Amino acid sequence: MNNFKYNRLNKDDAAVLLVDHQAGLLSLVRDIEPDRFKNNVLALADLAKYFNLPTILTTSFEQGPNGPLVPELKELFPDAPYIARPGQINAWDNEDFVKAVKATGKKQLIIAGVVTEVCVAFPALAALEEEFDVFVVTDASGTFNEMTRDAAHDRMSQAGAQLMTWFGVACELHRDWRNDVEGLAALFSNHIPDYRNLITSYNALTAGK
Amino acid sequence: MNNFKYNRLNKDDAAVLLVDHQAGLLSLVRDIEPDRFKNNVLALADLAKYFNLPTILTTSFEQGPNGPLVPELKELFPDAPYIARPGQINAWDNEDFVKAVKATGKKQLIIAGVVTEVCVAFPALAALEEEFDVFVVTDASGTFNEMTRDAAHDRMSQAGAQLMTWFGVACELHRDWRNDVEGLAALFSNHIPDYRNLITSYNALTAGK
Amino acid sequence: MNNFKYNRLNKDDAAVLLVDHQAGLLSLVRDIEPDRFKNNVLALADLAKYFNLPTILTTSFEQGPNGPLVPELKELFPDAPYIARPGQINAWDNEDFVKAVKATGKKQLIIAGVVTEVCVAFPALAALEEEFDVFVVTDASGTFNEMTRDAAHDRMSQAGAQLMTWFGVACELHRDWRNDVEGLAALFSNHIPDYRNLITSYNALTAGK
Amino acid sequence: MNNFKYNRLNKDDAAVLLVDHQAGLLSLVRDIEPDRFKNNVLALADLAKYFNLPTILTTSFEQGPNGPLVPELKELFPDAPYIARPGQINAWDNEDFVKAVKATGKKQLIIAGVVTEVCVAFPALAALEEEFDVFVVTDASGTFNEMTRDAAHDRMSQAGAQLMTWFGVACELHRDWRNDVEGLAALFSNHIPDYRNLITSYNALTAGK
Amino acid sequence: MNNFKYNRLNKDDAAVLLVDHQAGLLSLVRDIEPDRFKNNVLALADLAKYFNLPTILTTSFEQGPNGPLVPELKELFPDAPYIARPGQINAWDNEDFVKAVKATGKKQLIIAGVVTEVCVAFPALAALEEEFDVFVVTDASGTFNEMTRDAAHDRMSQAGAQLMTWFGVACELHRDWRNDVEGLAALFSNHIPDYRNLITSYNALTAGK
Amino acid sequence: MNNFKYNRLNKDDAAVLLVDHQAGLLSLVRDIEPDRFKNNVLALADLAKYFNLPTILTTSFEQGPNGPLVPELKELFPDAPYIARPGQINAWDNEDFVKAVKATGKKQLIIAGVVTEVCVAFPALAALEEEFDVFVVTDASGTFNEMTRDAAHDRMSQAGAQLMTWFGVACELHRDWRNDVEGLAALFSNHIPDYRNLITSYNALTAGK
Amino acid sequence: MNNFKYNRLNKDDAAVLLVDHQAGLLSLVRDIEPDRFKNNVLALADLAKYFNLPTILTTSFEQGPNGPLVPELKELFPDAPYIARPGQINAWDNEDFVKAVKATGKKQLIIAGVVTEVCVAFPALAALEEEFDVFVVTDASGTFNEMTRDAAHDRMSQAGAQLMTWFGVACELHRDWRNDVEGLAALFSNHIPDYRNLITSYNALTAGK
Amino acid sequence: MNNFKYNRLNKDDAAVLLVDHQAGLLSLVRDIEPDRFKNNVLALADLAKYFNLPTILTTSFEQGPNGPLVPELKELFPDAPYIARPGQINAWDNEDFVKAVKATGKKQLIIAGVVTEVCVAFPALAALEEEFDVFVVTDASGTFNEMTRDAAHDRMSQAGAQLMTWFGVACELHRDWRNDVEGLAALFSNHIPDYRNLITSYNALTAGK
Repeated sequence: MNNFKYNRLNKDDAAVLLVDHQAGLLSLVRDIEPDRFKNNVLALADLAKYFNLPTILTTSFEQGPNGPLVPELKELFPDAPYIARPGQINAWDNEDFVKAVKATGKKQLIIAGVVTEVCVAFPALAALEEEFDVFVVTDASGTFNEMTRDAAHDRMSQAGAQLMTWFGVACELHRDWRNDVEGLAALFSNHIPDYRNLITSYNALTAGK
Repeated sequence: MNNFKYNRLNKDDAAVLLVDHQAGLLSLVRDIEPDRFKNNVLALADLAKYFNLPTILTTSFEQGPNGPLVPELKELFPDAPYIARPGQINAWDNEDFVKAVKATGKKQLIIAGVVTEVCVAFPALAALEEEFDVFVVTDASGTFNEMTRDAAHDRMSQAGAQLMTWFGVACELHRDWRNDVEGLAALFSNHIPDYRNLITSYNALTAGK
Repeated sequence: MNNFKYNRLNKDDAAVLLVDHQAGLLSLVRDIEPDRFKNNVLALADLAKYFNLPTILTTSFEQGPNGPLVPELKELFPDAPYIARPGQINAWDNEDFVKAVKATGKKQLIIAGVVTEVCVAFPALAALEEEFDVFVVTDASGTFNEMTRDAAHDRMSQAGAQLMTWFGVACELHRDWRNDVEGLAALFSNHIPDYRNLITSYNALTAGK
Repeated sequence: MNNFKYNRLNKDDAAVLLVDHQAGLLSLVRDIEPDRFKNNVLALADLAKYFNLPTILTTSFEQGPNGPLVPELKELFPDAPYIARPGQINAWDNEDFVKAVKATGKKQLIIAGVVTEVCVAFPALAALEEEFDVFVVTDASGTFNEMTRDAAHDRMSQAGAQLMTWFGVACELHRDWRNDVEGLAALFSNHIPDYRNLITSYNALTAGK
Repeated sequence: MNNFKYNRLNKDDAAVLLVDHQAGLLSLVRDIEPDRFKNNVLALADLAKYFNLPTILTTSFEQGPNGPLVPELKELFPDAPYIARPGQINAWDNEDFVKAVKATGKKQLIIAGVVTEVCVAFPALAALEEEFDVFVVTDASGTFNEMTRDAAHDRMSQAGAQLMTWFGVACELHRDWRNDVEGLAALFSNHIPDYRNLITSYNALTAGK
Repeated sequence: MNNFKYNRLNKDDAAVLLVDHQAGLLSLVRDIEPDRFKNNVLALADLAKYFNLPTILTTSFEQGPNGPLVPELKELFPDAPYIARPGQINAWDNEDFVKAVKATGKKQLIIAGVVTEVCVAFPALAALEEEFDVFVVTDASGTFNEMTRDAAHDRMSQAGAQLMTWFGVACELHRDWRNDVEGLAALFSNHIPDYRNLITSYNALTAGK
Repeated sequence: MNNFKYNRLNKDDAAVLLVDHQAGLLSLVRDIEPDRFKNNVLALADLAKYFNLPTILTTSFEQGPNGPLVPELKELFPDAPYIARPGQINAWDNEDFVKAVKATGKKQLIIAGVVTEVCVAFPALAALEEEFDVFVVTDASGTFNEMTRDAAHDRMSQAGAQLMTWFGVACELHRDWRNDVEGLAALFSNHIPDYRNLITSYNALTAGK
Repeated sequence: MNNFKYNRLNKDDAAVLLVDHQAGLLSLVRDIEPDRFKNNVLALADLAKYFNLPTILTTSFEQGPNGPLVPELKELFPDAPYIARPGQINAWDNEDFVKAVKATGKKQLIIAGVVTEVCVAFPALAALEEEFDVFVVTDASGTFNEMTRDAAHDRMSQAGAQLMTWFGVACELHRDWRNDVEGLAALFSNHIPDYRNLITSYNALTAGK
């Protein structure tokens, strides 16, 4: 009756698109505090790496005031397709970008970027139209303020995108702790201070056991 | 025209799923203040008890840093099915859990857990796909921050889950004060300080009447 | 294509349901500051009066800790149907209430009450099922906190209720200032301090004109 | 399956409706801080100008306490249709206004106004019914508080309007920086202090290059 | 050792100064929500009346955009000294105002006004220099935002003013409920919705006693 | 040079004054969420008990709308002096209260009550004048909103009161965990959910050791 | 007894110090929203100009990442002393800066800058030690977050600085509207949207008078 | 007259005290978001290292639920005095701790810890009594909520402690960029994402110069 189909992230079906996390544009992000935002973006990048998801980097006008891609992302994905768009605001308007996306052969697109209502929403809506499954990582995407964010989320959600955050993405991809306890715990420990503390206390108490 | 069907909680049709309220994981919850969150979780547990709803407990990795189930829940439901999952992050991926749910014979699932976007959302979405009616108790579920929460709520709501809070669940199940005035009042008095105060003042003024 | 039909409030088609604005229950309302909430409730009552909308009052357990209906509402609507429910939590479960609603012959129900997720949401959902058009006045309805409110709004909106606030209700009913400039201005002046100030300054400057 | 069609703003298909940005009514706006709101409204006006979008101005009761249209808008659009409505609260109830809208021959309506739940929502819903595509500029629209705003956004979104903010509108219309780097940069520099700072630093560093 | 002397409000020693509560200036007040602010100002006025405190009204440039004194204050104090200052921003720079203050023969000055950092702070600091005891009613004074408010409070507090709110002023002046239970209860009931509700419930329960 | 003397709470020198925590008055408290406030008040009461501090209870007008003292406090201190004031708003204006305070022979007064700016501030200021050392427990005291609270704290702090919260009071009194590890841990476990979780996890991991 | 001396801004005694409002550093400011902050800084600059106050500009490391002084300030004060510090973090450690300050012959220093706890607080504290009167313009100074701001304000206030905001500075300097109604009104109209609206409405209504 | 003496941090006179940053206690910290708090603590530690300030580590009950010192601090200061207190809550009550402090020979104590009102405030007050100069690093100290924090800050500030944040501490110690541009920039780049972005953009633009 409900007809609902749980469209679940699957590590064999998913690719990650990191759109315009550039040093200049990051100064526009004010809906998330900078320490947290930096952590979220790196957490998403680390999980893409950890799950070996094909990852695509793209930037807009790197030579201008928007500034270069943040160096951490460049270092993490030295061999990833890197599309420095010559001018298209919507990455999906850039043929190379779409080609790179399609070359991954993946149906599920995990998207994050700066700023949310443009660099994330525009390609997300375009990809939905082409029947990709779109998963927006809201906490690795940033924008001017809560009002711009809320409008962007509503627009994407109404279009059929699924709103997620990096921790949920990691958990949905991993499925079972037994696939690799150490690896997932390390990911969490590096990006969730509270989880790191749990592990620290746990290790101290079980050290001698 | 509207075709809307009020899918209403019914105490003969409902079961409660308490997912991963573990001592370690609770330190991750920062979208609700701890005094309030503790109260909400215990209120939901008390109402499950009060309405004799079949209740299922489950945990993830109790021996590790996630920590044990909070003792209050263990004590309240000594005979409830208790599925300590060996590794599945989504409780619905655990056969014993699903078997326990189905063994209740109930169609309406009231779900709460920690953290919202994973331990609640994953089984909720899976249950919706299997045509269960899902009622998420948002205030007895907790997560990292409002951003993770909002994304989780949107994802579940769009999938057809109904978002509720413990007080609404209790009221929708009870239907009529005359079914048991004392019992419902006690539940409210124990978990709503403002309601307790109303009762205290009321009792003082009517004591001699 | 869109098939959207603007279901617009119409003063000949609308009735107002004021549910459980009782002196005791009001102490539970903490998602709106009390001065503002009191003003909103009275504004809604005044507009019901102003537009001569059939209005129905109902309460739950007036003799107990929930307390009596606030006296201002009783005074404003001395002749309105007043259903003191003996125990039903959902007003729609009370036959007299439903009968009173149907006796108005109106299709559009404007609902407000305390608390939002119970006293408003339950009858709203029941009325939607019976194909009434439901307009929830969110700012004349109150509840424990923003989390309970948000869940209630989502549940009602997904069911097809339209979320409004008292000012929008007044404007949609009035249609055209020329229908009665003085009357509408008085309503706004009595319940919107900023609007009253505009009028005060305007009057001072045009007094001698 | 998804059937989603990305209904994208297109500068040849779009018109801008500025509804009731009047000096008196602006004192009612309290969901956005005044410096930011003034900037957002002027940014929307500047982009309408920049993209040569047909723009329609309308006001309600200018001679009364609502006050005159803010002078900046009058100056920016000296030749735009300007409908001073004699009393209709919903601009769409005014024949001249609808005629002016239809005279543009545009299918996409970009709407902003004061207050959101009335002056924006009413014409937006009416236009949706007539199968226009409606894009609400939420941050150039203002109202009493977040509660009135949230209800208005929900009502419009559920009806099929797309919620956007001025920056997204500008970017979706512009499509490609190469269409006019200078022009778009000037628009951003004038209305986004953070972007202006990026440009200032960039210019200083590349001055001698 | 401490040498602290409790400088306590005393109804025989106190006068009230209401500075620039004008219809235009009130649109500048954004650190308190308008329904609450209006209530606070009227509560202070009512208590001044109730305790028969000499009260002085003053305004700045009533004929210009600042607008007239709000009519409620004029009506409450028809015989109070009313100094419409021809231009002095600091009321204390106006001889008539200072004369009126001194004519009361009171040592304790209770001050409120709009905006806090100017119309309240300037005369407060001037009066402190002349060794008056100054009690600022912070919640009947308003300003642009919390930042302007905090700076103003700090400046006055460091200078020796006592920061209070209207409820504390009323209680400190009244001293003992037995001086007039009815009167004080009426003041509270008219300006504190929660207190009114307590009284309503109390009356209902004790009515037949 | 600095001349600062650390006036430190000492369990042999301290008494606790609990002022007007009455069922009716508690509905006025809106600067702290009710679950947290209830917990804070009971935590303070429990620590008074735990450290055997002389404790004095007082109420204002118990028979009227203010309502009775909350029953938990009555039960915890069955033998404490209990001064039901016949009308004095400032408890220090009641001779029996002051006598009871002086009868404790203690110099350090730990005060909490409802509402902060009256029931706490007035006796605090009066006691400071008589050269008592006053320690205000801000989180076991409640009032209408943050504005009333801030003014009250400023007034008391400027007069020489020390602002503390219940946890700090407990720690300063206890001095050294070794005085009683179990007791202090129990106090914290009962009133700090996060601390309880730490203990739960700790016990689970060390159980078999 | 109180000995308080109202140290009041006086246009003949005051100089303005604008410290490090540089394009790069501005991206660090997150305790005030950028539209508002830009407006506040320009308002302070405009008032310095309007009152002909000697104004001193200084920057830190303009050639590096801190970026150049924002161009608007350079343009407003083409002839002001402009000290580009070669490395001193505290402007007061730069001899040229101190010399420039002393050359003004003014005793009252109005200081604003970025970031508050460093570029404002350090020279403010140094100037206080040399017995200047320091007036900090808190809303034309910005920093990382509210925590850094609050600490900075406390440190400066305890040292004897007076915390003000630009509007209060303008009013305290102007003293009397009659000194120049047009000029002050223009300053307010340009930097306070609410005030501009008052003037717009006022002018419209009095135009024909 | 003012007699204010700017007591300025000096790298030859300062020592750093890190009190109870333990894995368990950190779960109690809820007045700062965890990503930011972790960054602030490590920033303070890094600056202590960078300026070669004598640093003292201390913990309370490491073997119990409070958990071990966070490993990053242990690694940064392998040779620092490390006082694992056997039970004293106030570190200053532990002779070894005080001895270690005095052994540094420094007069200026920079203190941070968890929780603010106990582990920071108690030794801060004790040190002030012994005429040390105390500088509290508020943003590297954490506690339960804003209410506990505000009370702690007020108590310490009134006692003569200076409230600072880590960035201000670093700047006040460094004095002049020329002392080591690279080093200070690295410290900022590692702990201030916005500053890192400025440097990234700067480097990109000047790379070829």
